[in-house]
Amino acid sequence: MVDVAREAGVALRTVSRVVNNDSTVGAELAERVQAAIAALDYRPDERARQLRSGVTGTLGAAVRQLSHVNPVLRAVEQAARAAGLMVLAASTEDDEQLERRVVESMCRRRFDGIILEPIGADHGYLLPELAAGLSLVAVDRPVAGLDVDCVISDNAAGIRTAYAHLRAHGHRRIAYVGDDERIFTARERAAAFRACVAEHGGTLDGAAHTGPIEPGRIRAALAAALSGPDPATAIITGNATISVEVVRGLGPAPLAVVGFDDSELATLLRPDLTVVAQDDRAIGGTAIDLLRARIADPSRPVRRVTVPVELLTRGSGEVPAR
Amino acid sequence: MVDVAREAGVALRTVSRVVNNDSTVGAELAERVQAAIAALDYRPDERARQLRSGVTGTLGAAVRQLSHVNPVLRAVEQAARAAGLMVLAASTEDDEQLERRVVESMCRRRFDGIILEPIGADHGYLLPELAAGLSLVAVDRPVAGLDVDCVISDNAAGIRTAYAHLRAHGHRRIAYVGDDERIFTARERAAAFRACVAEHGGTLDGAAHTGPIEPGRIRAALAAALSGPDPATAIITGNATISVEVVRGLGPAPLAVVGFDDSELATLLRPDLTVVAQDDRAIGGTAIDLLRARIADPSRPVRRVTVPVELLTRGSGEVPAR
Repeated sequence: MVDVAREAGVALRTVSRVVNNDSTVGAELAERVQAAIAALDYRPDERARQLRSGVTGTLGAAVRQLSHVNPVLRAVEQAARAAGLMVLAASTEDDEQLERRVVESMCRRRFDGIILEPIGADHGYLLPELAAGLSLVAVDRPVAGLDVDCVISDNAAGIRTAYAHLRAHGHRRIAYVGDDERIFTARERAAAFRACVAEHGGTLDGAAHTGPIEPGRIRAALAAALSGPDPATAIITGNATISVEVVRGLGPAPLAVVGFDDSELATLLRPDLTVVAQDDRAIGGTAIDLLRARIADPSRPVRRVTVPVELLTRGSGEVPAR
Repeated sequence: MVDVAREAGVALRTVSRVVNNDSTVGAELAERVQAAIAALDYRPDERARQLRSGVTGTLGAAVRQLSHVNPVLRAVEQAARAAGLMVLAASTEDDEQLERRVVESMCRRRFDGIILEPIGADHGYLLPELAAGLSLVAVDRPVAGLDVDCVISDNAAGIRTAYAHLRAHGHRRIAYVGDDERIFTARERAAAFRACVAEHGGTLDGAAHTGPIEPGRIRAALAAALSGPDPATAIITGNATISVEVVRGLGPAPLAVVGFDDSELATLLRPDLTVVAQDDRAIGGTAIDLLRARIADPSRPVRRVTVPVELLTRGSGEVPAR
């Protein structure tokens, strides 16, 4: 900028005002500065401006995996864009160390706020960042052990709805194949399923089969659910990936299936998959609303928003009990 | 940092050396500085350090849509991580104006380099950035009109392989349903298909049906291909989304289908989809290699790398001609 000022023969603050579109600069002067900027190929450095203004106009999103279908991230991007904010996102790969590196890097860049899909049980590393003014909203799962804003789906209601739907179609032996219960959502869903079984006097022992999302493990869980003297006649799955494996594993067997999570895969399965759909748009939009409110007022009370889910009946969940 | 120096009773440069892990600082002095950092809750500001060092350790990725399956972005992230670099990504939503805002924002943040899935025909806005030292590598498509590094799939060879495969299974009336030819890859694939038809003396007039990826348009293209006195007995699709629509539209009709692009959907279709698979890992890894080389030597010759594709036979492409 000093070079531009010298080239244009104006004061440094005049260059600054032109760069910042200050309309009080006369047209002739502004043109001289623009000509000097062009001649010297001057590129404003956003970071220097940010250092002075304290605002970056940028939100960070730390999500499990960027390059995967993530309708919540899509809704986050759309809501941020509507508010004139840019989202720069990075993958945490379900790796606690990587999550920490990503979040700390976003903090050091002074992003205005961060949307986080939190991993793991220990988020102590966030404490000093929060104390130093980090605005953060968790989505899909709360931040374990810390009182920060979060937006989650009503996992328990979703499982209860699926269970009641299958009972209404005559099923009495309903099994659940879910994700690793170290994960918050998997834990909530499995617990809700067990509560349903207890409440309705279901007879299946160990009917909640949870563990890592690996084809072999899921096939084994399915085989266990379908074996013995009282095999399950209906399956509730814990997420979209498990749904696909379960439907594949069932083949032409006429079992009822209700999946948690909608996905574009759901309407490719035969029959089309009945699902408990999360309201991704509401989750993403609410996350951005909470984050903007937190940025505007760091001392406001912490809010934890639970977003309703919806049953979409498409065929697989309406197969009657034999 | 001034406050930390005062609190610790040391010189400012001592604080700087401790923050930057300079091992020449004595242990006792370093401890005093660390204690002052803890007492004052000092958080280093990455941007200030970057302004001095000129290196951010961060690459930008401007891709069509973050929240969608993107195995190339995944490979880019993995290769960058292996090199100790962080990738911050943003969506361009196939919107030229948004692409420009995203790229210019990354430039103003002085990311070390940018991976771009370029949109549109006019990238003139990149010229001053490139002149000012931007390191950029295009993936999937070249940057129209500019001579910059890029990594693309061998689209033409992929179509030729699919066409030859279908001919080997007896098909003589092969149609192509592809994407909008304003898009580079769609243009390359459609042109290769037309060259195959011309070379092999195929008889289908207007056999390349291209246009936007909309279910109605794709169904109409399929209907056109299957109508008339000489209906097609085999279809080549231009990308994974079109494959799904085509397979859905065909229903139980025993036509042969070869899709361009593999996806997790491919093995859910019945029969499993035979595809021309792109080598996403090679594309992403090569893009990072080129970008690091460009950052290290801005004056090196521009390279355009074409990555081979591979035919994966899974059933749908091996249906014989009637």
